[in-house]
Amino acid sequence: MHTLVKQATTFLDAIITPQELKKLSNTDLQALAQEIRQEIINSLAKTGGHLASNLGVVEITMGLHKVFDSPNDLFLWDVGHQAYVHKMLTGRRDQFPTLRQYKGLSGFINPLESEHDAFVAGHSSTSISLAVGMALAADIKKQKRKVVAVIGDGGLTGGMALEAINHLGHIQKDVIIILNDNEMSISENLGGISLYMKRIKETFFYKDIKQKIDFIEDKLDEAKLNPALWELIEMVKKEAKDRFDTPGIVFEKLGINYSGPVDGHDIEAVIKALESVKDKSTPQLIHIITQKGKGYAPAESDAIKYHGVPAFALEPALTENSETATRPKAKTYSDIFSQALIDIAAMDKDIVAITPATAEGSGVVKFGKAYPDRFFDVAICEQHAVTMAAGMAKLGLKPVVSIYSTFLQRAMDQVVHDVAIMNLPVVFGIDRGGLVEDGETHQGVFDISWLRAVPNFKVWAPRNARELRNMLYTATQKNDGPVAIRFPRDKAIDAVDSESGANGKQVPFELLQVDQWPIVKESKNADSGCYILAYGAMVDACESILPELAKRGIDATLIDARSAKPLDEALLTRLMTEAGARIVTVEEGVESGGFGAGVLEFQARLRMQLKSNNAGLDKQGKTRVQAEIGVLAIDDTFVEHGARGILLDLVGLSASKLTQSLCDFFKD
Amino acid sequence: MHTLVKQATTFLDAIITPQELKKLSNTDLQALAQEIRQEIINSLAKTGGHLASNLGVVEITMGLHKVFDSPNDLFLWDVGHQAYVHKMLTGRRDQFPTLRQYKGLSGFINPLESEHDAFVAGHSSTSISLAVGMALAADIKKQKRKVVAVIGDGGLTGGMALEAINHLGHIQKDVIIILNDNEMSISENLGGISLYMKRIKETFFYKDIKQKIDFIEDKLDEAKLNPALWELIEMVKKEAKDRFDTPGIVFEKLGINYSGPVDGHDIEAVIKALESVKDKSTPQLIHIITQKGKGYAPAESDAIKYHGVPAFALEPALTENSETATRPKAKTYSDIFSQALIDIAAMDKDIVAITPATAEGSGVVKFGKAYPDRFFDVAICEQHAVTMAAGMAKLGLKPVVSIYSTFLQRAMDQVVHDVAIMNLPVVFGIDRGGLVEDGETHQGVFDISWLRAVPNFKVWAPRNARELRNMLYTATQKNDGPVAIRFPRDKAIDAVDSESGANGKQVPFELLQVDQWPIVKESKNADSGCYILAYGAMVDACESILPELAKRGIDATLIDARSAKPLDEALLTRLMTEAGARIVTVEEGVESGGFGAGVLEFQARLRMQLKSNNAGLDKQGKTRVQAEIGVLAIDDTFVEHGARGILLDLVGLSASKLTQSLCDFFKD
Repeated sequence: MHTLVKQATTFLDAIITPQELKKLSNTDLQALAQEIRQEIINSLAKTGGHLASNLGVVEITMGLHKVFDSPNDLFLWDVGHQAYVHKMLTGRRDQFPTLRQYKGLSGFINPLESEHDAFVAGHSSTSISLAVGMALAADIKKQKRKVVAVIGDGGLTGGMALEAINHLGHIQKDVIIILNDNEMSISENLGGISLYMKRIKETFFYKDIKQKIDFIEDKLDEAKLNPALWELIEMVKKEAKDRFDTPGIVFEKLGINYSGPVDGHDIEAVIKALESVKDKSTPQLIHIITQKGKGYAPAESDAIKYHGVPAFALEPALTENSETATRPKAKTYSDIFSQALIDIAAMDKDIVAITPATAEGSGVVKFGKAYPDRFFDVAICEQHAVTMAAGMAKLGLKPVVSIYSTFLQRAMDQVVHDVAIMNLPVVFGIDRGGLVEDGETHQGVFDISWLRAVPNFKVWAPRNARELRNMLYTATQKNDGPVAIRFPRDKAIDAVDSESGANGKQVPFELLQVDQWPIVKESKNADSGCYILAYGAMVDACESILPELAKRGIDATLIDARSAKPLDEALLTRLMTEAGARIVTVEEGVESGGFGAGVLEFQARLRMQLKSNNAGLDKQGKTRVQAEIGVLAIDDTFVEHGARGILLDLVGLSASKLTQSLCDFFKD
Repeated sequence: MHTLVKQATTFLDAIITPQELKKLSNTDLQALAQEIRQEIINSLAKTGGHLASNLGVVEITMGLHKVFDSPNDLFLWDVGHQAYVHKMLTGRRDQFPTLRQYKGLSGFINPLESEHDAFVAGHSSTSISLAVGMALAADIKKQKRKVVAVIGDGGLTGGMALEAINHLGHIQKDVIIILNDNEMSISENLGGISLYMKRIKETFFYKDIKQKIDFIEDKLDEAKLNPALWELIEMVKKEAKDRFDTPGIVFEKLGINYSGPVDGHDIEAVIKALESVKDKSTPQLIHIITQKGKGYAPAESDAIKYHGVPAFALEPALTENSETATRPKAKTYSDIFSQALIDIAAMDKDIVAITPATAEGSGVVKFGKAYPDRFFDVAICEQHAVTMAAGMAKLGLKPVVSIYSTFLQRAMDQVVHDVAIMNLPVVFGIDRGGLVEDGETHQGVFDISWLRAVPNFKVWAPRNARELRNMLYTATQKNDGPVAIRFPRDKAIDAVDSESGANGKQVPFELLQVDQWPIVKESKNADSGCYILAYGAMVDACESILPELAKRGIDATLIDARSAKPLDEALLTRLMTEAGARIVTVEEGVESGGFGAGVLEFQARLRMQLKSNNAGLDKQGKTRVQAEIGVLAIDDTFVEHGARGILLDLVGLSASKLTQSLCDFFKD
């Protein structure tokens, strides 16, 4: 059990800018670290946020501000969610009560928020590339600055970080890389690099040479050497051991000077390590070992759970399970997806699941427990994840890639080149499709548009939990090409009903003809001519406002346009050639190239087809394809952070805004 | 000077399937290698193709077919253009005269072409991910197969290859990686990994330990040890040297067993190396050293130039320069772009150029020669290239990223996350936008659609050389956000005129208002109401058919719609509200979400705006936004290989097809 006592914040109170921190002694810095940890815990207890990772980087952050001069020296915080301490030390402490709230402090870094934030970050593994670019630019622009990238061991598994290291090793610029090694990315960090860091001692290199030196020693023993020579032999052994016991050799071989490991919670050691590389003119990597959640017992022991936490109660009774215990948690679409995958995998042994380090967030960690041999968490490697899935599909498996919409952006080439060209049946479970509270870097708004452009792809979105289950079932059982199924980061509609009926038995799966769009609610007057084509989560949003629309005299038919590709062309042809028809599409994605654009494109195509067939001309010689189409989608702008409800309103997709837009469009 | 004599092909003639090859002795295989090289050179002299890389892998390919059993064992050829020998040995020798021609043999690998092609490939660095996926799948499906990835040292710099190695090191599957090390990707291979391979001997590890052992030896000398002990000490030294002299340690540390280096042109050594790993159950990497262009003197000495060659004359007089010397080469858009960049950089010292290993193909190698300190070829690292550029722009440089459309697919997340969110002025020179002869994997057809969806981006395409120059000038001088300028792989329209006028002086650059679309040709009758909005290369295509359209009674206005984003909204509003207007958009990209879709979206938006403003209603209460719009673009399918002219016809964008479509649409 963990208890917290309110402490004074004498040192923290004094820090208005990083300048004040520079004056503190090491002892004072230790006290400051304590105060910072307390403040983070207290603050996040109210707002939620990335607890564990920020508790881990307290000393690293203080050390950076002690040794370097921000903002002239540039700190690149990889992923950007480990910068809370940096924010506190750069004049943003007072804003913490607004953390991650609309118009409040961002949970990530953002140059618009402070000159001390050198660059935006929300996705992983970008910091070294940025640092290389900035170091080269500073040179060309003759600016005197140091550039420091702070990257976790998880971020290091991302291909672009490795590309950047490779390039940096070649050009030998004075970039400093802080490798914050807590042996964990969002979920468990996987890969040769991290295993390598753990098992240096067992490598045969060391063992082999050590055995032989031992043997020589034995023989030399007989020869009675003088003590000075023995000392030297011991030194060689020690040096060999040191070299091979550190992860340094891989980096050294790639041209990056390695130092460490350093205890990341020993502020003196951290400062010393930073000082020692500060004036070097070559690439430097400092390997710093930290503990996620340092200083908060529950987070230390379960850093995955405490990676990103909702607001939690800071009471003596706070236990690891208190969060879930005290709140009955509504099932999310992630939960539904994960359970459906487990249920289908029970019937179909070819199903395998792949995730790029988001097993926890997407819920597929449950699948991993149910089917450990059919579950592959490849770490932060979206590109590898998708192409690996393609390889699996080619040999007859049915891979399901669970991935966030925003992270799928990393693997678009693999989607085209490795999955779509060969029309391989890889299913993409696209989580966090649509708006999320994390802000610009995390909005899942491009998936519909980008995937629709890729030949052979089916692009689906369910209106509720049951449809999600049946879509996943259909995709894996029809198994005739790539399918993307996107769902929002939200509680699932009709969650309970989807899995068990009144008798508690599992509701059987159903094969859907997804590109036949169901009518959710028909207009009362068959001649009203008003049609709402809603996609995914927007079906429920529109259904909820039908009564209000009716009150305002709008009698519209609501259609569950669950397949943005292929479209329900038969239905569309009927609507588009109906006299006086008006159609509005509604989707939670960018307007450009989205579902609505698809409907517009179909209208244009239909018109051209009818023209070239000399069909479709009415008596006046005008084509009959005359339905007026309106598109409600997300405007051409990046959407900031804040609660999903607020953001939906901001982009015009809240109940009230939808009502207004639909009334404007349908009114006579 | 290089001469060739027609030789017999006794051994090659006998090889119908890989089975025949297995029976040959090593001496016979050497003779076969000779024959294969001769055949490749003779064949490519007529058809063109990837000469140097295929001459380099003759022995590796023979070795693979000798030791393994294709198609049950799976060979993954990275990039796929090094598989000519593989094709010859798997029953496709007779088809070589049709290489890279429409409906002929593909220049890449393709499972539709042969069961011996395990997977499609055209982009770099995918093979290890595929191999991992296939090895895992074979396990789960209980298939007994070996999986072999053949990857060059260039491909190894791609982030996804490093992701895959990292994952493979963790899961320890029995994947075999053949590292074909010719110290060169498309252009010069860069990066820590390749430098590392070259300079092992100088690393301090070896020097340090060796020095100390030497010192101990000296001391021991005095102690008069017995010869057996000396021998052991020598052995330790040798072993240390062996270990540290090979590039193996980095791979070993990541969990991949390393063997090599092996002489890739010694068939016996290659076979022995393959045999030695064949039955291992852990990840294996064999480091094979080859020479690009092996066996053809001009290609050996200039492998970059001979990477991909057009058909060349096989005469005694063939010299390195004969290709360019004998044909006056029309200037391509790549040439124009590269020269414009050099000209602008002469005036603007903030311009820097970045390319991911396509300096030769894109022509920016010339920029590198003119401004070596402002030129960055980062190897096959599209992600790193884009984010590095973003970092440079943040510090005030004006980075211009020269990249092929198809390879930009690798960096879409970086485009959004690192460039667009902060609205950084990075200019993308998108080469090979549109259809190219290489086929499915290389078609540059998604860029318009995908980039249009990204907020803050400007998406431009020039109609000719002069417009390209002025666009690049405008993008770098207005410098107010990201700009993509795409141009086709084709000779430039009005190339000469663009750079020097009648007096031979350089034509001055002009700042353009790109989103004001120029009228190329106005209709004779102002009331015709027919408008063609052509994008990029399609302006010229449409201009050329205007006379034929006129003959057929179509009197259309042709507009150079050079900015797909932002659109010329003033012009569009005028056209769309003109009574009876008919508009056709024409672009060389996918229909889904492309330029035409943008025009349709604008029409829908305009209609909604007018409705919500209660404006735009005519007397009958119908909106005035009634222009009929047709979209001519590339259908929702992957386009095969073949000459650009054939492919344009295939997708309906040739002169004859465009004429037909426009007539159908505009006829009354």
